[in-house]
Amino acid sequence: MDLNEVIYLIEIDSKWIEDQLRILKNFTDEGPGITRITYTKPWLKAHEYIKKLMIEEELEVKVDGVGNIIGSFKPKGKLSKRVSTGSHIDSVRNGGNYDGIVGVLSAIEIIRVIKRLKIEIDKQIDVIVFAAEEGERFNIGCLGSKAITGKLTEEQLNSIRDREGKTLLQAIQECGFSGKIDECRIAKGYYNNFIELHIEQGPILESKGKDIGVVTGISAPSRIKVTFKGMAGHSGTVPMDHRRDALIPLAETILEVRRIIEPVKDLAVGTVGFIQVKPNVATIIPEEATAIIEFRSLNKEVKDQLIETILTRIGEISTKNKVDYDAKVIVDEKPVYIPTYIIELIEKVANNLGYKTLRIPSGASHDAAHMMEICDVGMIFIPCKGGYSHMPKEETSIENIVKGVKTLVHTILSI
Amino acid sequence: MDLNEVIYLIEIDSKWIEDQLRILKNFTDEGPGITRITYTKPWLKAHEYIKKLMIEEELEVKVDGVGNIIGSFKPKGKLSKRVSTGSHIDSVRNGGNYDGIVGVLSAIEIIRVIKRLKIEIDKQIDVIVFAAEEGERFNIGCLGSKAITGKLTEEQLNSIRDREGKTLLQAIQECGFSGKIDECRIAKGYYNNFIELHIEQGPILESKGKDIGVVTGISAPSRIKVTFKGMAGHSGTVPMDHRRDALIPLAETILEVRRIIEPVKDLAVGTVGFIQVKPNVATIIPEEATAIIEFRSLNKEVKDQLIETILTRIGEISTKNKVDYDAKVIVDEKPVYIPTYIIELIEKVANNLGYKTLRIPSGASHDAAHMMEICDVGMIFIPCKGGYSHMPKEETSIENIVKGVKTLVHTILSI
Repeated sequence: MDLNEVIYLIEIDSKWIEDQLRILKNFTDEGPGITRITYTKPWLKAHEYIKKLMIEEELEVKVDGVGNIIGSFKPKGKLSKRVSTGSHIDSVRNGGNYDGIVGVLSAIEIIRVIKRLKIEIDKQIDVIVFAAEEGERFNIGCLGSKAITGKLTEEQLNSIRDREGKTLLQAIQECGFSGKIDECRIAKGYYNNFIELHIEQGPILESKGKDIGVVTGISAPSRIKVTFKGMAGHSGTVPMDHRRDALIPLAETILEVRRIIEPVKDLAVGTVGFIQVKPNVATIIPEEATAIIEFRSLNKEVKDQLIETILTRIGEISTKNKVDYDAKVIVDEKPVYIPTYIIELIEKVANNLGYKTLRIPSGASHDAAHMMEICDVGMIFIPCKGGYSHMPKEETSIENIVKGVKTLVHTILSI
Repeated sequence: MDLNEVIYLIEIDSKWIEDQLRILKNFTDEGPGITRITYTKPWLKAHEYIKKLMIEEELEVKVDGVGNIIGSFKPKGKLSKRVSTGSHIDSVRNGGNYDGIVGVLSAIEIIRVIKRLKIEIDKQIDVIVFAAEEGERFNIGCLGSKAITGKLTEEQLNSIRDREGKTLLQAIQECGFSGKIDECRIAKGYYNNFIELHIEQGPILESKGKDIGVVTGISAPSRIKVTFKGMAGHSGTVPMDHRRDALIPLAETILEVRRIIEPVKDLAVGTVGFIQVKPNVATIIPEEATAIIEFRSLNKEVKDQLIETILTRIGEISTKNKVDYDAKVIVDEKPVYIPTYIIELIEKVANNLGYKTLRIPSGASHDAAHMMEICDVGMIFIPCKGGYSHMPKEETSIENIVKGVKTLVHTILSI
């Protein structure tokens, strides 16, 4: 059978995908939307369920030391390549049912297509479900892909804690995984490629009427944790001029992040999403105030400049407000560029399928950015309604999903 | 025995006071300093202990529906007056061992002095230990004195909740008190006076080398709770110009509170001590941000003007940032002025004892401010080290305490 002849006749089992999306919706904690945080019960149930789906498709399934699932499809005969595809099943708190999930289901659907149509291929195809892509619980994302690419250290497993003080290692071991990160490592060159399908999580494709986003690069986050230390005191008895209120420099810093982003807002974004005040009581002058400042850009120089500027300003703000401070860069990831041959392949495949494409950078980080360390990666975006993501109203249509899966299937088969 | 002759010979049992301070230090939750929050176990243990001390002194002890303790000393014969004195034994989280406690121990020491010296008096003296003076757990202070003066409603008992969602009534009843607030009420005129001894909780007496602060008035807090409602979104994918980040108007409001206080900082203080951000995750644009803004002043007009100004500015800030908001005044108490005859009496008594006095307003609220509704009140301040209060390093010397207790004893006997 000539692959080039049959390839554009492939039908996607949209009913199966819709059924799976419906079933996965049940694996969530209480509250609006989906709360399926890695190493919690709802995530573990979804994890079990996805493993079962893979076993049903006769994949050779392995779960590694941090809970990544790798399902291998190994055709008989001599193999020319190993390619991998997949995404994640964890969510943020009160997130949606499409971020990650679409990439996982489409990866399994590829195997189902190959078996259904008895397509003969000479590539090993691995379906990867990464653990803890979202930084929700431990304030650090892409843990699974970092473990696979050797960027997660044993020291981190013991030092990173959730809000209850549980270490990452404890959380991992409570789920029955070994926590041995050496076992997770995949050697550079083992895979030729990793291709991930994902919802855009932004408003651009929809607003421009495009079907497929061909990702050109993944902008990486840098995060700075800053804590201002002032002096507590009774809110009624300490005169204004005697105060060293830690919340004042925090408020100035939040506005400063906004101010320094303004001139480069087409190239970068800046966010303060997390803050903490101690003791956080209406009648006590704040003694300590902490923020996590995040910058993302596809342009490393722009991002480095933003970090340098905010660190300088934090120093000046602290001096002005007579408080001490401690600021450190806790995350500093490199932007990743997608190789031209993959961009061109995805674009050609999608155009041949009759889809309107747009080359687009990814503002969000993805496991694909880390997989770049061990193989060439590509990413395919599909539009999502209003650009909403990480919230209950995150949504994309089955038509959008099918277009994405078709593009993914043909990319994986052609690469 | 002529009271005027013996009065300045009275000795205070400083060893007993020091012993009691040492014992009370043990009634605390874990962590630095004292955490003895009303309706928790450490507070209940201190409550039991103080009740026992009163019973040892043969006071007629009654515990009312919200947990106020009233210990009555009723001399035989016809009574000319009823006077009351006391304070509270609850603390903020990680507070000190003197705020409140000094006023309670000194009140009991008065009775001990009278019995020790067999002073014949024709006044009933009630020692009152108010429940929940601090707003720590339920974000609303002086609950005990509000119940006594009829300002606490049944509706509030059911609607005010702690962070775990427990109602005030549930917390009260779990401690074995009835929660019936009608039983707490004391009629206007029942007491002629209420006099409270308290640490200053500010730096003024110490820095001016004074022994006794004669309180001229108690500035009352007003509190505004404001919530900004924006739109959540992924911190990497929503362009800056599409954002409705709820934390930006919050930061602007925090700085605005500082700005509008500046011209009136000799008359008022303004604090944002409590803030809350949702979902409070580094990778999600804040959807909701809440603050409690507090103003205190002895000048009601100044305070009313501050409230009006900040409410206007909150509206403008919301419009500018394209967010919705909800702002309401949740506490609005009236400043209280101490009657001149009490100010002059305390001053005269302290000066006769050889102490340096200073007329001073109270920046903090106190149960005395509420007792003003049913009788004439007075307050005596003693210096505390560095003005620190509501924190572990809150401290005052036994010499300071003895001067305060002597002033209190003589004021109560002379009034």
